[in-house]
Amino acid sequence: MDKLSSLSRFKNSCPFLGRTKQSTLRTLCTSTSPKYPSISLLTERATKCPVMGPALAARSTQIVAGYASVAGTAEVHHMHHSKGIFPGPGSSMAGIEKCPHAAAARAAARIAEDLAAAAKDEDKADAKKQAATTAASSKAAAAAVGCPFHKNATTESSKSKPAQEASDVSPGMFNYEHFYDAELEKKHKDQSYRYFNNINRLAAKFPVAHTGNVKEEVEVWCANDYLGMGNNPVVLETMHRALDKYGAGAGGTRNIAGNGAMHLALEQELASLHRKDAALVFSSCYVANDATLSTLGSKLPNCVFFSDTMNHASMIQGMRHSGAKKVLFKHNDLQDLEAKLQMWPKETPKIIAFESVYSMCGSIGPIKEICDLAEKYGALTFLDEVHAVGLYGPRGAGVAEHLDYQAHKRAGENPAPIKGSVMDRVDIITGTLGKAYGTVGGYIAGSHDFVDMIRSYAPGFIFTTSLPPATVAAARASVVYQKEYVGDRQLKQVNVREVKQRFEQIDIPVVPGPSHIVPVLVGDAGLAKAASDKLLTEHNIYVQSINYPTVAVGEERLRVTVTPRHTLEQIDKLIRAFDQTFTELNINRLSDWKALGGRAGVGLANSAKAQVEPIWTDEQVGLVDGTVPRTLRDGLKAFVDAKAVGIVRERFEELLGRVTVDQKVEAKANENGLVKATLKLKAGTKQSYGQMHHVHVPTLVEVVQSA
Amino acid sequence: MDKLSSLSRFKNSCPFLGRTKQSTLRTLCTSTSPKYPSISLLTERATKCPVMGPALAARSTQIVAGYASVAGTAEVHHMHHSKGIFPGPGSSMAGIEKCPHAAAARAAARIAEDLAAAAKDEDKADAKKQAATTAASSKAAAAAVGCPFHKNATTESSKSKPAQEASDVSPGMFNYEHFYDAELEKKHKDQSYRYFNNINRLAAKFPVAHTGNVKEEVEVWCANDYLGMGNNPVVLETMHRALDKYGAGAGGTRNIAGNGAMHLALEQELASLHRKDAALVFSSCYVANDATLSTLGSKLPNCVFFSDTMNHASMIQGMRHSGAKKVLFKHNDLQDLEAKLQMWPKETPKIIAFESVYSMCGSIGPIKEICDLAEKYGALTFLDEVHAVGLYGPRGAGVAEHLDYQAHKRAGENPAPIKGSVMDRVDIITGTLGKAYGTVGGYIAGSHDFVDMIRSYAPGFIFTTSLPPATVAAARASVVYQKEYVGDRQLKQVNVREVKQRFEQIDIPVVPGPSHIVPVLVGDAGLAKAASDKLLTEHNIYVQSINYPTVAVGEERLRVTVTPRHTLEQIDKLIRAFDQTFTELNINRLSDWKALGGRAGVGLANSAKAQVEPIWTDEQVGLVDGTVPRTLRDGLKAFVDAKAVGIVRERFEELLGRVTVDQKVEAKANENGLVKATLKLKAGTKQSYGQMHHVHVPTLVEVVQSA
Repeated sequence: MDKLSSLSRFKNSCPFLGRTKQSTLRTLCTSTSPKYPSISLLTERATKCPVMGPALAARSTQIVAGYASVAGTAEVHHMHHSKGIFPGPGSSMAGIEKCPHAAAARAAARIAEDLAAAAKDEDKADAKKQAATTAASSKAAAAAVGCPFHKNATTESSKSKPAQEASDVSPGMFNYEHFYDAELEKKHKDQSYRYFNNINRLAAKFPVAHTGNVKEEVEVWCANDYLGMGNNPVVLETMHRALDKYGAGAGGTRNIAGNGAMHLALEQELASLHRKDAALVFSSCYVANDATLSTLGSKLPNCVFFSDTMNHASMIQGMRHSGAKKVLFKHNDLQDLEAKLQMWPKETPKIIAFESVYSMCGSIGPIKEICDLAEKYGALTFLDEVHAVGLYGPRGAGVAEHLDYQAHKRAGENPAPIKGSVMDRVDIITGTLGKAYGTVGGYIAGSHDFVDMIRSYAPGFIFTTSLPPATVAAARASVVYQKEYVGDRQLKQVNVREVKQRFEQIDIPVVPGPSHIVPVLVGDAGLAKAASDKLLTEHNIYVQSINYPTVAVGEERLRVTVTPRHTLEQIDKLIRAFDQTFTELNINRLSDWKALGGRAGVGLANSAKAQVEPIWTDEQVGLVDGTVPRTLRDGLKAFVDAKAVGIVRERFEELLGRVTVDQKVEAKANENGLVKATLKLKAGTKQSYGQMHHVHVPTLVEVVQSA
Repeated sequence: MDKLSSLSRFKNSCPFLGRTKQSTLRTLCTSTSPKYPSISLLTERATKCPVMGPALAARSTQIVAGYASVAGTAEVHHMHHSKGIFPGPGSSMAGIEKCPHAAAARAAARIAEDLAAAAKDEDKADAKKQAATTAASSKAAAAAVGCPFHKNATTESSKSKPAQEASDVSPGMFNYEHFYDAELEKKHKDQSYRYFNNINRLAAKFPVAHTGNVKEEVEVWCANDYLGMGNNPVVLETMHRALDKYGAGAGGTRNIAGNGAMHLALEQELASLHRKDAALVFSSCYVANDATLSTLGSKLPNCVFFSDTMNHASMIQGMRHSGAKKVLFKHNDLQDLEAKLQMWPKETPKIIAFESVYSMCGSIGPIKEICDLAEKYGALTFLDEVHAVGLYGPRGAGVAEHLDYQAHKRAGENPAPIKGSVMDRVDIITGTLGKAYGTVGGYIAGSHDFVDMIRSYAPGFIFTTSLPPATVAAARASVVYQKEYVGDRQLKQVNVREVKQRFEQIDIPVVPGPSHIVPVLVGDAGLAKAASDKLLTEHNIYVQSINYPTVAVGEERLRVTVTPRHTLEQIDKLIRAFDQTFTELNINRLSDWKALGGRAGVGLANSAKAQVEPIWTDEQVGLVDGTVPRTLRDGLKAFVDAKAVGIVRERFEELLGRVTVDQKVEAKANENGLVKATLKLKAGTKQSYGQMHHVHVPTLVEVVQSA
């Protein structure tokens, strides 16, 4: 049953619902109150309703915040169950749970009934009387003539939708509002309409977030802050200091007042990370991919793109916008790619566009082999390392670096290319600062002239306000930190292995792959959404369901991202929650898919081993020499690497000044023989920039130093 | 003489210059040292050269930082003049000043000569000897066989440009590096190649910035931080607090873990600002315009765009990417627009895309009249208010709001549309958070279903990491502050009037217009760049020159942006500097353009008065009732509005907690009869979020309260 027919059930029992347009209701549900960001506009308005107002007022602390903006579905569901407000799934009212705000109205009406029965306060007699009357008769659609809901809804639909109703549109003219509505209905019909969850990741409690209700906390298992760098103390410290010194915005485009030392330094840092001549920073990697591919494709004469079928939307858009010819090749299929490359003359400019880690299935592109083909057929290689930078390679430069792990580790800070290495052979690398690096922004890296040409011609780079100095400073701090410290990358892989293994033990189907992505196959849009909601409401675990068009129909999944900051206890809880949810919703297990002949790589008889073995070897993770970091647990706190912090601080000394701390290190070996030290930062550092002062006083942090 | 031929003069005197490719040199000049962000890679390498190394070491504090990245041209020029290192313009060496780094090499060689003659230190004898020898013989191209410059350059060109030389590219294959180089040469030839200035705007010293040299400060007169909100204390305070609570990044797309209360609240705030149903935030307004227009144009059946010829690149790209038909109409020409609208059937979906303030000429679109035409012909109106939000209207909602000033002022915080008002009649408004609001990001506002459709279909919105919670929190603080406090807008207009008037008094040609933009006509690309450089180097005033393709050839200009934070003294200095620069470079004055019959609106016999009268009336600025704010001066510091600060703090109370300060207000009337109060924030507020603590201790600020 779709949402609209669910809603229509209540049209008889509430004059507001009866007279308000569905589209208006939908947007009231998804709009937040300007005054109270945790509640929706609908809830705020409800406080003025004679039925719901008193009810909401009385129970505001427990209830109001619960009906929070668009996180509603799951939260309301949760409340219903925990408070027993609602009948079970067998009831004729089960359908309403699909619409949290119809449900909210209903719940409040019930509360009003309770209140009306119990209330003693004389002052509220009038409201009570009205509430009781209305609540009692609501199912039979009594009037509530003065209902502000009703009034507001009418005003709303007449005043703010100038061309919405056919009668408002002059005869023969196009009806834009009807068109929008029809486009939205398509999304509702094919279940691809998206309700955004309200998730507020708490820096001090990573990976915990609060929902629309600031008091309700959930564990996040699907964010792309892959290493928790968004709350790394030295990243935050750098950002605070840059913010005080240079303000909140760049104040212009790169060409006009918006280019500073922080931008230039970040680009140099990224060029050095990838051992390329130059790099260029954009608002996001979506913009970087779009702007770069569209500029290349439109400028190179008769350019042809060769594009992996699983490429990200930003690359697809960039190629489309260029107007150049595009040839698709099967995902990671070198034979198909070569067959297609062969069809074009050698002198034709060609660009092979592909990714290192494909984010929805976790497969990894055959970078070296694609470079071989590119050389053979005279093509440029354009490699998107968005889901790999910070996560692969000894310095976090991505999978291309990882493929020559030892050589890059040995070369260290030397920015010179390593001749013949895979990273050197890739012409263009793009990456993001918004995932593993925990901030925001994107970039390209490549030859001097390539980067200079994009800088000089791409409108998406030229005509936009540059990222704030504080943002690029934070991003650079993150890149520098991860360049120096490999432990986060190793621990992430350790935890990924653990989660994959634990899922396998309980027959949960994970799409096999060599990367850090853990896609759990569900295979049905409705079930995937239901599982996601159940995990959130019953287990306080947030894993967003991934449905069409992001993945193919029938391959819907729960995409789990595991970080080095998830604890053993949180992993245990995740595994139990998945087990229970799969049982309760009767979702296919791994053995079911095997019996069915497999789907989306799950349960296939013969997966090529090379494609599923972790790209991080036992040796690289530190399992061979015993330097492997330990998974956190309740008693083992997260730490920062003191040496990496020191290097970050050095990098910013010229622009932000020196950070001086009284530090005392107490070192001792733990049970693994690893030297662990506790760095006591006794006094903070005081930076003074005119009228603003901030005193940074990081508390105790544990520091691991290499033995 | 172009840059390359200037460079070639020195090829005989320096083996490095002689053997290094021009493109490599260019990028070395524009790349920053990873370790010292204020110097270029070229300068860093120069420290290893036997000629330049000792010289640079000896003079490092005065010199090295001076050859700073791409700000070089102006700074080097400045140094040459102030230190007398270089011959005057009449000399045969004058041409080299066009290339700061050829000049830098030359200057260092001279310094090395001086040093060699004067040095006494035995330890440096070897280096000195080599330096002296090489320096003396440099003009005749002596060897310097061990020169690391030479070696590096060779390595550089062979190692990092895989396909650069014809010999590296297999026969018959396309040479990508040659192609990039040729594209860049076009830019050099038509003088549209851009050298970014290195400008670091200092929050505590607004509008002052440091250049690539952290000790060299300039006054910025061209940034788009139009009101100085990038360093408004309550904006920074909000951002610091949100950063501590929610970290540095969003961690995902809006659909997956990257949607929180801060995002929803900002969108609600923006919807309320424009009195629209809904708003949607994007990475930037470039992305907002591009994504929205391309989605609309591709989805609406047979859609036709009607686009003002002066529209911004982001709109042009969006229309192009949509694949829909586009009809250009003459800038602000209603007759031309109507003639073109008439040519299409009534039932055809049409979008009129235009701006309120055109940023390069300062003209203002006839919004009301375009709405009339849109209604008559059944078109949607798409209005870009990027250069107007925060700056026009009683609440800063833009020019559309400004046109019904009193009605919007009266309606205040009520988010309901004002029926029949211009802002209500515009279907789609887009704006930025990166200019007057001082942060970063862009947005659209419109009907519920329109916004929901873009949210559901635009790849540029869907598939990208959302802006960090701290960023959207800061943006919202800025919007709320400016919604409440009109003084910054008024004072900006007062200062704009002052600057325009003072320019007119000394016959400096300003393109006439009703907005805050002050475009000073130069009329020649080379002259405009020379004037900008001269202002920077000789007067420490930064005004970027605007050349083709941003403006038409022959209409090159210096675009001056005046803020409420520029002081009378800074204005005096600006006027003097322009006067002197125009004289020294013999740039056409207003009277010259008049004699020539006018250009770009300057010196025309009959400009329509309505098009040049300030849109902010005397009454709105506060000139009639005497409430006009006074221009700052050395003794009159910038202030924040206490009431607006209080409202901002209230808005964030639920998510960030309460800000408590011991505040004492001392009020007294100033000479204008205006009640001015000094708010003493005695103690800071301490926010604790787990491991991070920040103590905010704002110092004394002056506060103006409305009388």
